[in-house]
Amino acid sequence: MAHIPTQEGFPGIRGLFAFRPETALPLNQLVDVLLQGRSTLTPGERELIATYVSAQNDCYYCQTIHGAVAAAHLNGDEELVEKVKLNFAEADISEKLKALLAIAGTVQKSGKQVTDQDVAAARRVGATDLEIHDTVLIAAAFCMFNRYVDGLGTWAPDDKEWYRDRGRKVAEFGSLVATKQYVPELAGAEKI
Amino acid sequence: MAHIPTQEGFPGIRGLFAFRPETALPLNQLVDVLLQGRSTLTPGERELIATYVSAQNDCYYCQTIHGAVAAAHLNGDEELVEKVKLNFAEADISEKLKALLAIAGTVQKSGKQVTDQDVAAARRVGATDLEIHDTVLIAAAFCMFNRYVDGLGTWAPDDKEWYRDRGRKVAEFGSLVATKQYVPELAGAEKI
Repeated sequence: MAHIPTQEGFPGIRGLFAFRPETALPLNQLVDVLLQGRSTLTPGERELIATYVSAQNDCYYCQTIHGAVAAAHLNGDEELVEKVKLNFAEADISEKLKALLAIAGTVQKSGKQVTDQDVAAARRVGATDLEIHDTVLIAAAFCMFNRYVDGLGTWAPDDKEWYRDRGRKVAEFGSLVATKQYVPELAGAEKI
Repeated sequence: MAHIPTQEGFPGIRGLFAFRPETALPLNQLVDVLLQGRSTLTPGERELIATYVSAQNDCYYCQTIHGAVAAAHLNGDEELVEKVKLNFAEADISEKLKALLAIAGTVQKSGKQVTDQDVAAARRVGATDLEIHDTVLIAAAFCMFNRYVDGLGTWAPDDKEWYRDRGRKVAEFGSLVATKQYVPELAGAEKI
């Protein structure tokens, strides 16, 4: 049971969004800009960063739902998502994404541990300033989301099909639109 | 020097807000809702939570600027802010705020470490569901902001007066309005 009363049937962060629509709005807008807004990183690549950080933080709900969103963007390749979580260095992804995942993994531990060398290594394999910025902020944001979801003791479904279905919706419509479906207070909100 | 090129004269998170206004908007809106929006916790209490978490994460810029905002809300009592950072159990604050700071300190380590007992202890001294929710989200959000600021290697001024001046402005006008002053892309944005 969650540490605060959330509506029955609303797992993970969904119960928290419904509990506090005022914070749900900027949180969803932030995720949409970072994961689905204009970027030279694909949505699949960005969801892999979010999934990897959530796995490092051992947040079951976040790593599973964002893993499902990532897979939805990557032609359903759940095996690749698992590989990135377990050992991204050996995964079939670009050298640039590997360098960005390394930075994300460092941010997960502490922002202060990111070195000039880490950033130079990412640049050498083609990462741009914006990609480096967004990688750090995605990693930092999921250190927030993971703590939010677990710190309030929310529950998470076991059923993989639930995540696949939700993952496809978020991949198609974005986080804010998907959230509006069950948080009526957000009905008038626009994506930014 | 920051890991990405930020405008000269823009320390800490300010350089990052100017670099990426699309993410600056929801980040500032989130902070305004959490720290200055309607709440039964005073703005000073909420800034103390943000300051404490930033100190635990050893983020110089965030702990200093939010410490200054806290002091601005607390009749300039910088000594109280320092005491909360160093040993809140002995500080002249309410038992409720002490229990909430204990939860925030646990969230800073990991959301998974927050126990039913921690939450029950806060309830016993009067904390409400919304206060517990907001404490967890403030702590989680500053785990993001601290990683963002330090993960991109931003610089921070040494001059305490700089923080006092900025702290008073943020305390009076809120984060979004204060940010609009130097990020022209946010000029039309409303507080939420």
